[in-house]
Order: sequence, then C-alpha cells, then structure tokens
Amino acid sequence: MTAPTDGSASRASLIGASIPRREDDALLRGEGRFLADLDIPGALEVAFVRSPHARATLTKVDLGAARELPGVVAAFAWDDLRDDVAPLVLEAEMRVPERVVEAVRPLSRLQPFPLLADGAVLCVGQPVAVVVAVDRYVAEDALELVDIDYAPLPALVDPLDALGPDAHAVAPGTDDNLAISVEGHVGDVDAALNSAVHVVTERYRSHRYVASPMETRGVAVTVDPHDRSLTVFASTQTPHRLREVIASTLGIDAGTVRVTAPDVGGGFGQKGVQYVEDVLVPYLARRLGRPVRWVEDRLENLTSSSHAREQVHDITLAADADGRLLALRDDVVINLGCANLTGLVVPYNTLTHVIGPYVVPALDLRVRGALTNTMFATPYRGAGRPEAVFAMERAMDRLAHQIGIEPHELRARNLVQPEAMPHETGLMYRDGTMQTYDSGNFPELLRRLVGHLDVDAVRTRQAAGASAGRRIGVGLAMYIEGTGLGPFESGSVSVLPNGRVRVATGASSQGQAHRTTFAQVAADALGVPWDRIDLVEGDTAAIGHGVGTIASRSMVTAGNAIHTAALAVREALLADASQILEIAVEDLELVDGSVRPVGIPDAGIDVAELARRRAPLLAPGTTTGPGATVSETAFFKPPTVTVASAAHGAVVEVDERTGTVEILRYAVVHDCGRVVNPMVADGQVTGGVMQGIGGALYEEMQYGPDGQPRSVTYMDYLVPTSAEAPPYVLDHVETPSTLNPLGVKGLGEGGAIAPPAAVTNAVEDALGPDRVHLTRGPLSPSRIRDHIRDGRTAAER
Amino acid sequence: MTAPTDGSASRASLIGASIPRREDDALLRGEGRFLADLDIPGALEVAFVRSPHARATLTKVDLGAARELPGVVAAFAWDDLRDDVAPLVLEAEMRVPERVVEAVRPLSRLQPFPLLADGAVLCVGQPVAVVVAVDRYVAEDALELVDIDYAPLPALVDPLDALGPDAHAVAPGTDDNLAISVEGHVGDVDAALNSAVHVVTERYRSHRYVASPMETRGVAVTVDPHDRSLTVFASTQTPHRLREVIASTLGIDAGTVRVTAPDVGGGFGQKGVQYVEDVLVPYLARRLGRPVRWVEDRLENLTSSSHAREQVHDITLAADADGRLLALRDDVVINLGCANLTGLVVPYNTLTHVIGPYVVPALDLRVRGALTNTMFATPYRGAGRPEAVFAMERAMDRLAHQIGIEPHELRARNLVQPEAMPHETGLMYRDGTMQTYDSGNFPELLRRLVGHLDVDAVRTRQAAGASAGRRIGVGLAMYIEGTGLGPFESGSVSVLPNGRVRVATGASSQGQAHRTTFAQVAADALGVPWDRIDLVEGDTAAIGHGVGTIASRSMVTAGNAIHTAALAVREALLADASQILEIAVEDLELVDGSVRPVGIPDAGIDVAELARRRAPLLAPGTTTGPGATVSETAFFKPPTVTVASAAHGAVVEVDERTGTVEILRYAVVHDCGRVVNPMVADGQVTGGVMQGIGGALYEEMQYGPDGQPRSVTYMDYLVPTSAEAPPYVLDHVETPSTLNPLGVKGLGEGGAIAPPAAVTNAVEDALGPDRVHLTRGPLSPSRIRDHIRDGRTAAER
Repeated sequence: MTAPTDGSASRASLIGASIPRREDDALLRGEGRFLADLDIPGALEVAFVRSPHARATLTKVDLGAARELPGVVAAFAWDDLRDDVAPLVLEAEMRVPERVVEAVRPLSRLQPFPLLADGAVLCVGQPVAVVVAVDRYVAEDALELVDIDYAPLPALVDPLDALGPDAHAVAPGTDDNLAISVEGHVGDVDAALNSAVHVVTERYRSHRYVASPMETRGVAVTVDPHDRSLTVFASTQTPHRLREVIASTLGIDAGTVRVTAPDVGGGFGQKGVQYVEDVLVPYLARRLGRPVRWVEDRLENLTSSSHAREQVHDITLAADADGRLLALRDDVVINLGCANLTGLVVPYNTLTHVIGPYVVPALDLRVRGALTNTMFATPYRGAGRPEAVFAMERAMDRLAHQIGIEPHELRARNLVQPEAMPHETGLMYRDGTMQTYDSGNFPELLRRLVGHLDVDAVRTRQAAGASAGRRIGVGLAMYIEGTGLGPFESGSVSVLPNGRVRVATGASSQGQAHRTTFAQVAADALGVPWDRIDLVEGDTAAIGHGVGTIASRSMVTAGNAIHTAALAVREALLADASQILEIAVEDLELVDGSVRPVGIPDAGIDVAELARRRAPLLAPGTTTGPGATVSETAFFKPPTVTVASAAHGAVVEVDERTGTVEILRYAVVHDCGRVVNPMVADGQVTGGVMQGIGGALYEEMQYGPDGQPRSVTYMDYLVPTSAEAPPYVLDHVETPSTLNPLGVKGLGEGGAIAPPAAVTNAVEDALGPDRVHLTRGPLSPSRIRDHIRDGRTAAER
Repeated sequence: MTAPTDGSASRASLIGASIPRREDDALLRGEGRFLADLDIPGALEVAFVRSPHARATLTKVDLGAARELPGVVAAFAWDDLRDDVAPLVLEAEMRVPERVVEAVRPLSRLQPFPLLADGAVLCVGQPVAVVVAVDRYVAEDALELVDIDYAPLPALVDPLDALGPDAHAVAPGTDDNLAISVEGHVGDVDAALNSAVHVVTERYRSHRYVASPMETRGVAVTVDPHDRSLTVFASTQTPHRLREVIASTLGIDAGTVRVTAPDVGGGFGQKGVQYVEDVLVPYLARRLGRPVRWVEDRLENLTSSSHAREQVHDITLAADADGRLLALRDDVVINLGCANLTGLVVPYNTLTHVIGPYVVPALDLRVRGALTNTMFATPYRGAGRPEAVFAMERAMDRLAHQIGIEPHELRARNLVQPEAMPHETGLMYRDGTMQTYDSGNFPELLRRLVGHLDVDAVRTRQAAGASAGRRIGVGLAMYIEGTGLGPFESGSVSVLPNGRVRVATGASSQGQAHRTTFAQVAADALGVPWDRIDLVEGDTAAIGHGVGTIASRSMVTAGNAIHTAALAVREALLADASQILEIAVEDLELVDGSVRPVGIPDAGIDVAELARRRAPLLAPGTTTGPGATVSETAFFKPPTVTVASAAHGAVVEVDERTGTVEILRYAVVHDCGRVVNPMVADGQVTGGVMQGIGGALYEEMQYGPDGQPRSVTYMDYLVPTSAEAPPYVLDHVETPSTLNPLGVKGLGEGGAIAPPAAVTNAVEDALGPDRVHLTRGPLSPSRIRDHIRDGRTAAER
C-alpha cells in the first residue's frame, strides 16, 4: 500500500482497507432488486418482431391481425412512428476533439439506426415491429400474427469480404462499407524493417464475443400521473447518457425524463451503450400514457444486443539481433456489424494499445472498421485492447521463438523502464493528448510473474517429455491500459441533519461495489466513519450531470470528484466549528465524525450538529443565505487517461487425445495505482480474468455464411463457470497515478485483456511452436484437435 | 405603484405589471390535472368507515365480511395498525417560541389523533376503519359489510356548554375540555371602564364554516418499484410539512417520501393541515406494496374535513365623551371540535387582531379553546381574524350608535395615524416579538372607502323613507392582518444551458398564480424576460426544505427568497461575464437575458451561453470545482409578520317581507404593500370577498344538539356563486413593507376577513339599530325575518 497523502489516522485506515462489500448482504440473500424484479402496477409488456434474415428488403408489414388479438394494446411498425422520432445516434459524447481531427484525420461514418426497420433489415435480430400487450405471453403470441414479407438478399459476414471490391453496400451512405479508418505513424517503419535481423509477419483473428451479463437488458417506464414526465428504470451502465439519448431521439426535454438504474447484474460495456429498445419503451409509455416494460430474454441478448471483439490483425514485428524491437506494423480490420454506433472508441483503443508496455521506435498502425450484415459491435470489457494484445503478444512469442530466447526474456529486453516514466509513445491519444504512460513498473510486473509461474520448473518438466499425450506449456502476456476516461464525472457530498452523509455520483454500479469503495473515499476525505456514508447513484434525479460506469473510469473520475467534494465539505464544517468553538481552523481536526480541537477527543461537535445548525428551521434569526445546507458538488475532469498495467501468465496442460486444455495455474501481477479496497480490486481483476479465460477457451458467437447466428443459447455460447476457474495467483504492484489526487488508476477491464493471449501462448508452448501456430480462439477441443491432426497453422479456422 | 428599488428598465417593467396568469390557458381549457385526474395504473381505491355517532364507545369492529367481498384487497381497523404507526400530531412547526411561553404562559393541550378510532369515537365522520379494494365501488360496497357495535353517549356541541361544570370530558387528558387558553393584557382596563363615558358590552358569535374548496381533498401514493420509496400525490397546501408528518407518523425516513401536489383546486387552509387520510393512504401503499388512492367526496369534505370559525366573543368597548377608545375587553371561547390539532394558531390570531387598526390604551383579552364532539377546527382563510373583526367592528357600530355619530367618524377618531408607524400595540405576537404595525395608511383607507360607498347618498335615501318594505343601509369594517408568517420559505434559481431559468420553492399554489408572479419576481431581480422562467413548486423533490402556502405568506416569504436567490445568480453571471469580456462588473448590466457593457445592447452574452460555459461537458480543462452550474438557493426568514390592512364596506337593501339581503355595492380599499401583479392581487382579494359574503349571508355548518351535522350537501351548505357577486369597487393603497426587500405584504386571506362584519353592519343599519341587534350570521332570510318579527336582539339565535 502506498503511504496516505494525509497524516490523519482516519484517512490512513480507510484507503487500502479491505472493508467487506456493503452490497453483498442483500445480494447474497436474494434481496437484490433487478429490473425484472420491479413490480410496476399496470405495466404493459412489450415484445419485438425481429428480423430472421441477415439482409432483406421489406415489402409488407401488416400488423392488423396482431392488433386484433385480445390483450394486445398496440402494435407499431416504423411507418407508425417515423414522424415522432429520430433515428438512434450515440456518438455525441464520444466524439474526438478537434485536435485529433486535425492531427490524425480519422474517418468515422456513423449509421443512425432506425428504431424499427425502415424498408430493409441489415442483420438478424434487428427490431422490425413492436407489440404492446397486457402481458408478455399475449405479446409473444401476437408476434406470430404479424405478417411481414421479406425479400432476402445475400449477406456479408466477413469484414475482409466486406471491404472487397465486389461487396454490396450494407448500409446507406457507405458504398464501400468502410465506416471507420484511423492511422498512427511514428518513425520510419520501412527503414526499420530493412535494418532488422528478425521479422515476423502474421495474421491473427480475434473472434466474436457477446458480453453475456448474468442479467439481460431491460427497460421499464412509468409515466408521472401529474406532469407526464417519464421515469425510466433501465438495466444500464449510463443513466445520464441514456436520458440524453431518449430526449434527443424522442425530441423531448431531458428535464422530463428521469433515468434510474436498479440493481444491475453486470454490464461489461454491453449496457454502456444505448439501444433502440431503450428509446422505444419510453416512446411507447409516452404514446400510450401507461407504464410499459420490456425484459430481454437470453436469445435476444445473444443475438440482438451488441457483439464485440471481432478483428483481423495483419501484424509485423521487427527486431535487431538482440531482440530489441525496431518496428511494429499492424493493419487491422474490425467487424463493426451492421452499424457504426460508437465511432472511434474501439478502433482507437486498438490502435493505441497494440504497442503495449514496450519501447518501439517505429510504428505503422492502421485500423479500419467494416460494415457487415451481423449484429453491431460496441465496446466490451477491454474495448479493443484484448484484440490488440492478442495480436501483439502472439507476435512477440513468435518473434522470441524465431530468435530462440525465452518469451519473457524478449519482453524484458523491450519494456519501458520505470525511470523513463512518464513515457510518450509518439501516438496521439483519442483525447487529443500525446499518449503518455504516467507511471508504472513493468519490469517488476514481469519479474514477479515469472516467479509466480515458475517458468524454469515448466521447462524442466517439458524437457522430461510428455506423458500419455499430456503436454504442458507456459505462456504470458503483458499490456498497458489507458483508464479513467473523461470527459468528467460528478460527485456530491452532503451532511444531513440526522448525521448521515449522502454521496451522489453519476457513476453507476453493475457490481463494482461503489457503495463500499466510494464510502471509503468520502469517509477518508471527510473524516467520518465509513458506515455513516450513503451512496446514491445510477439515478439522474440524484445528481444533474454524469457519464456513467464504463471504460475503467469510476474510481478515477467519480472517486476523485467525491474526494474533492468531501474535502470542500470538510473545509466548510471546520469553518463552522471554528466560529462556534472560537478556535482557529488550524487548531481543529475532523475525526470520527466530529470536529474537535486537535488531540482533544472528548471536546468535539458532531457533524450532524453542525448540519443541524445550518438547517433553516433550526437557525432562526438570519434572514437569508445560499449555502444553508452542508453540501458540495465537484466534477473531476481527468487531464488524460492514467495508465494501468499488468502481466498475466498461464501454465497449461493439453490433452492431445481430446484436445482439452487445462489451466494448471494462472497468475496475474497487476498495477492499478493506489488500491482503495484490495478485496474489491481483487474481485474486479479476477472476474475479468475469468471472462478472458472464457474467451480464450470457450466463448464464441459464430455466424454462418448466410448471416445466421449459430451461438444462440448457452448450450452453444459457452460461458465459463466456477468449475472452470483455475488455481490462481494475484499480486499487486502499486505505482500511484500522478494524474489525480487519489493516485488511482482504473481496474474494471484489465483482468479480461490478457488471458486470450497468455493462454494461447501457453497452449502453443505446450504443443510446440514448430508444430502448430495458433492464430485465433477459442481453443476449443475440436480446434486443438484440428491443429494437432493437420499440423499446420490453421490461421483461417 | 411604488417606485422600484432598482433603476434598471427591466425591473421597473415587471414588478407592478398585470401580466396575464400563465396558468389560465390550461385551466380554462379544462387541461388542469387535479388529483382525481391522475391516471395511476393499478391503483387500489380506499373508502373509510366513518362514525355515525358524535360520541360512542366501540364494543366490536368486525371486518371479516368486508374482507370476504370479492375485489376487497384489505381492510383494517386500529388494532391492525396500532403497532406500526403513531397518532397524528401536527403542532411541531407551529409551536410558539420560548419567549412567548415565558411571557404569556399560554395553555395548549394537543390531542394526538388516532389514525383510526381507538375504542371510542369523538365526532361524526371520524374514520373507524378503512377498506382497500380494486375500485371505489367495491370499497364502498364493503363499507356496508363492516360490523361495528357502537355504544352511543350524549354529545357536547356548544363550546360554552363544554366549559361548564357538568360537561363530560371529550378527549383523554383534558377533563375540563379546556385545551387552549391564552391572554393578553395592556394597561388598566378596569380603571378605564370606570372613567369611560360610553361603554358597550355584547356577545357576538361567529358561526361554523367549512372552507369548501372547489376540489375536495385526496391522496394517491405510488411505490417506487426499485427502492420502495413513496411518491405521495396530495391535494395539499404544504407538501414539505406533509412529508414530515407522514415520516414521523409512520416512523420512516423522510428521505424515502416524496410529496408532490398536482394542480390543486383551492385550499383556504383546509388543505394546509394534515389529516389521518393523508397518512393512512401512504401507510396502505407501503403495507400493501401497491399504489393506493383516495379521493374525498363532498359529503366527506363537509363533515370530515376540518371546520372553522366557531367562536363566542363577550366583548366590552369603552370610550370617552368624544368617542376615543379607552379600553377593550374580549373574552373569547373557540369551539375546537374534538381535538386541538393546530394549537395556538387561530386563538393567538384572534387575540392579536381584535384591536384592529385602532389605538386602544387598555386591553384585557382572553381566548379559550373548548373541546366538543364536533369535527375539529383548523385555520380557514383569515384564521381567527374574521371572527375577531366581526366582534370588534359590530361593537364599534353599537358604540357609534350609542354616541350618536357616524360609524366611520368613530373609526376615524381612533385610527393609528401613518406618522405613528411603526406602531406597537403592547401585545406580544405569536412569534415572540412585540406586535408592531410596520407601515400603513389607515385614514386613507377609510377616506377612500367612504367615498366609494357614498355614505351621504345612503343617508339621504334613508331619510327619504323606505319604499314597499325595502330598506337600504350602509356598513363598513376595517382590519389589520399580520401576514407573511415564518419560520422561513425557500427559493432556488438556476440558469440552465438551454436558456431557461428554473425557479423552485417550497411554496405551493392552489390557485394563487405563483407561476406568473414568482416569474415576475425572479425575472425582475435576474434581468431576464419573465417568460424564460419556469416555476417548479409543490414538490419536495424540487427543493429540499419548504413550508408551503398558507397564512398569506407566499409572496412575502417565497417571493423574497426567490428575489434573494435571483440576485445572487445575477451576481454570479455578471462575474462570469466580467472574466470573459474582460470588463469590470461595474461596467456590465444584465438586461433582457444577456450581460452586456452598460448601454451597448448588441454586445451581450446570453445567460444561456454563460450557463453552458459552466456546464462540465463543455468546459474541459479545469479539473474540478463546486459551483459548476449557475444555481443559488436562499431561505427567507421574516423577522416578524408584516401588517396588511383594509377597509371594506357595503350598501345593502333588505326586503323586509322576504328577509332577503341584496348587496347594492361592495367596496374594498386594500393595502398589501407593493403589488407585484395588480390583476392577480385583485383576483385574490375579490375571491376572499366572495367567501366573506358567503359567510355573511349564506354558509353555515350546523350541528344538531345530538352532534349530527346538518349541512351535509350543497343544498344545505350554501356556497355563493357568481350570481351572488355584487357590484364592486376595489382600490389599492400601497404602503411598502419595511420588513422585506420586495416591500410586499401578504394578501391571500384579507378579502375574507371583513365582509361578515361589513355586511352585518350594513344590514343592521338598514333595519335600524334600535330595532334589531344582529349578533351572528349568516343573515339568512329566515334569520332576518325572525329579527324583524321578534323586534329583539336575538343574540343567541
């Protein structure tokens, strides 16, 4: 743990303390209240007609029979609402600044998405019509009665095909299906390649994932009986953004919409974007003047909520004779699916994270996004980084193999050294600043990881030969991650006359334990016991401005906003007490919830009493005055991202007869700066690791060449369970961020970034890099068997 | 109009302007949304079993059959909820300060009121049990099935009887039924009486009224699907107070209750107190976890919502030979009904308003409150003042008759003169200050009134003799009114990035046109056009603290709070603009919504732009800071009440054959200090005058000696309509208050205070004071006929 920045006893005891999660008691007892648990009296239920075709024109949408079904309240197609609504557009707050536009000139053609199909469908699962009924059963029955004539057309599924010369246009306005293109160049890559001794050139694919939160999406909307304003309950990561999207799409004042998130069962980015359903359900409630609810089923979540991660990397790494990196070239094509909704978020993340923790003097990077007739892709835990790390770390292993040195040795020779911090990569980051690693100790991460994996012991066992077709191997992967994305987050701290401290923020938990960790932050800065803090979040009614919990940002942005607001409240309370006690502020301290003369514990005034004295009812005599309650609001606007880092590694055993992979040990050495609550931090990293392992070995959203999704149930889309959790070591290095008062870095996504690369490196190490060349996941038994049987690279499997 | 206190053009144009009421467009189109209009999906409906007896013990309450009725969801009696709730107690915020307790030593025994009858009933209409059903019809049907055994007991109805030696105890804890006693003494009344030349001693009765708002009371409660917090829609004047009463009675955190008032169709004090139904409906919603609604019917409103005004005054006035007042003695008994819920509010108002606008050197005043087996009494428009004015102004007429001078001449000789302001009466006011008239010009009120009435012309016609049994007369009455009661009211002003200005306050309109007048106040102080102001009120979610709209207080308290907050916002905007324009604040002005260099209209920055520059999304670069939105909150705490005043008069014609009274002319000269919106002010005064005329001539809630209410429909309780509105003159004198920045005084109640006295004086003048002596209202045809026929004083009729 880093030394606290303030000497007070209360502060030192709270930041860094593994306080048990306050949310767990209710959740573990089954008393969580998720969207589907909400009892909304009189709520109508919604079901969507979704396209069964990947590409088709609509020649007829007849809702007549559906509307006749008893219990159906309304049914709408696009023609019924096109005059009332605008297409869905999400880019607004993610827009890159002018500096980036001028310097990098990225291309990003957004596809505003119609709320219901407008004459054509672009992918399987796209909403075509909506039925509102007295219950879900009736609504689903009515779907069968909707009469739609589709004229199917051939579909585009592969992003490389989509950029080919003969490809049809997936969406209007992008004839060549190129919706995104962004480049980054540093130094002279061609010259470096010419002078290099070792060069590897490979094609790696990151396959398609679905975030698969345990709770599916859902929206329920009530209409205020008096002023007709909407209260939108949504299983979302971003209530404030959703409010803006609803308001702009429906053309109504955002002040008439409250968005609030109940308990949310995981988001992972899939709930960090806004969907047509999120806007349509409020529209229906408003149009019908009645409460309306839609709860996604698993089929819908797998096929019609956003997908992620499908990328093709053509990567070239060049090194000198000693293995020092000279150049990196990566030409990336992302499968955006049928619409570019989130612009440069993922592409730019990929572009700026391929390089990883290494010094590479010359860079030639290009990321393009192609439209296809598949479900649109949006950020998912890691958001472009796992894909980049998979390509780079696989290439690093191939390079080490070519040079003939240990993979960890190759990495050690190329790491940015701690004394070189802050380190600039030469690339412009998405926020318009020079990409800079503010702090970190990458050699220490690697050193500890090699120890935890006991690489030498693996080599000894490998040398002893495989027994009964069982081969072991070791692999590792390192990454850096820009965390704590802006533009801002809000935090307010209010001391109530009953002695409770109310903390509100625009961040919004989906399992991150904000109620625990933000209480620590507020209590620490304010000087009150943490269990007097009540957090209110996920509710636009609680605080006016906010962004939400995405992008490994909440502790950095919301945490520092709350910290700042709490310090301001502390200052105000000390000033109040100074007047009352007639003691100078410098001679007072706020400890354990009361202001007291320094070192005199029994002479304190509780903050509740100070709040009461400001309450208007109880302070007659003064005639007026703002600031009559003890409350401060702060907005933290990070100057740029702070860079977290980690080294992951796995020891695996592969059964050559069945193709199954067993992870014998998984190790993580992680650096997220100052750790507020180690237990919570460990949980965050570990959850991410399990999702990463899922992607490495099990999970894949497959599409057939006809654009039909094939992984439409959990029998096909294989999410890991606790049974798949390997023996595990988690270690922290703490290099505090220099970019915020708390010294924290983001950690929500990190765990998921490296496992595909680390596990795949380990499996290839087990099977032998001369024998197989693994270029994509997941490493299913059948794929492993194919590799072993075919003895080839299988790059395109 | 008084001169504006600030020289800016925009300010001068707004205060004093008759801007049309912004609320009228919706209301006149029938688009108002009152409580019964609210569409609450799934709401259960409530009906109450109410006592048919004025006094009884309960020997059985059997809900079994009611609960069995299909559609009944629940039915409760007191035993079912006594463990969950506390009795209703309302006094908290109306408690008199220590200074009053020490100086005056008032008695006020409150009767906490059980939410449902606890073993006994105290009056007809008291709730005994409650039924919740799927609709109101079923709930009412179920009432018939509730099996209750009452053991009836004799009832007490008359307050003088209640204080007699043989009276039974109405409520526990007050064996003598004396729940209130307060006195005020100045000078030596006995000595003054001994030296007086003229003395009148009379008994006057103020009869019992029901406020009769056009909309009855009602409560509807929804339960938040996520956190189970309650949203209480209530037809109330006091949302913030109601929230506190709900929370304390149910024993829950006030933070879990939001109270919001939709459009409210009149309150007049009846909706300014909190009732068992207001608490029971939230209780039921909470207990059942479902939305619940109750809308009062007219029978309930007349018999089970609070009554008012029943008082008996034994008054003595003494004067010297010239008619100069030497002493006033008044011994008052108030009929509190079956519980003292609002403590000293009405009694103290009566005590301090008997003296009126006159100089009286010696005072002997006592007000007692007696419990009876009738519906409890609470403040109603005027709140103790119309009763006092009726006694005093009737006694003044009797005194003038005894002396043989014109009633207006007697008054002119005794008025406090404008140059004597501020004038102290010698009594301690309810807030603990010396009762002081801050400003006023009483002689001017009287002079103008005599002119408007053309008293001399009436005398000429009277001298000419009556024709065909039709007699005319003229009468007048004057009063002062302490207005703008504390302890405080809140106001916040926020400039939004869209250019709208949001004003929030704890005041809560029931027809007072706050949306118009508070917009004028805010726009005036801020320097923006008034139609850019949006008022949010009547909602505890809009602002944390508030009192409500009662007691002629809103423009004084909320108006000045909004004024103060708006000035603070203006200061902040000028400071912002000063930085941007690099021009000193002194050289800037905020006019028409933009800040500009003084006298350069085209060089301004709109306040919307200034707000946008503070909005976090659009101001990157700064890392933190409270105050990042342009918003200020102020609480105005009046030092004491400000004294409004008026002179009312009527010319009447009485048909001796039928006993009908026709008001030929009604005139008002009114002083409420600075007038913000003359049209709105005129409407307020005029509405009050009509309610006063209603009480003078038509309205009476009668009880039989058995405690049965007799005026239980509008066939019996006669509310005046526009057909009863007389020819009318309304004139204003403006003496600005010295006690608040706006210089305003309250005017909501004033109109209703004097008409009973003025009309009765006129009728007695018409019939001849030697012939009849009118001592109580209403002056119904039958009562007039009785007086004429009996030719006696009929004091006890």
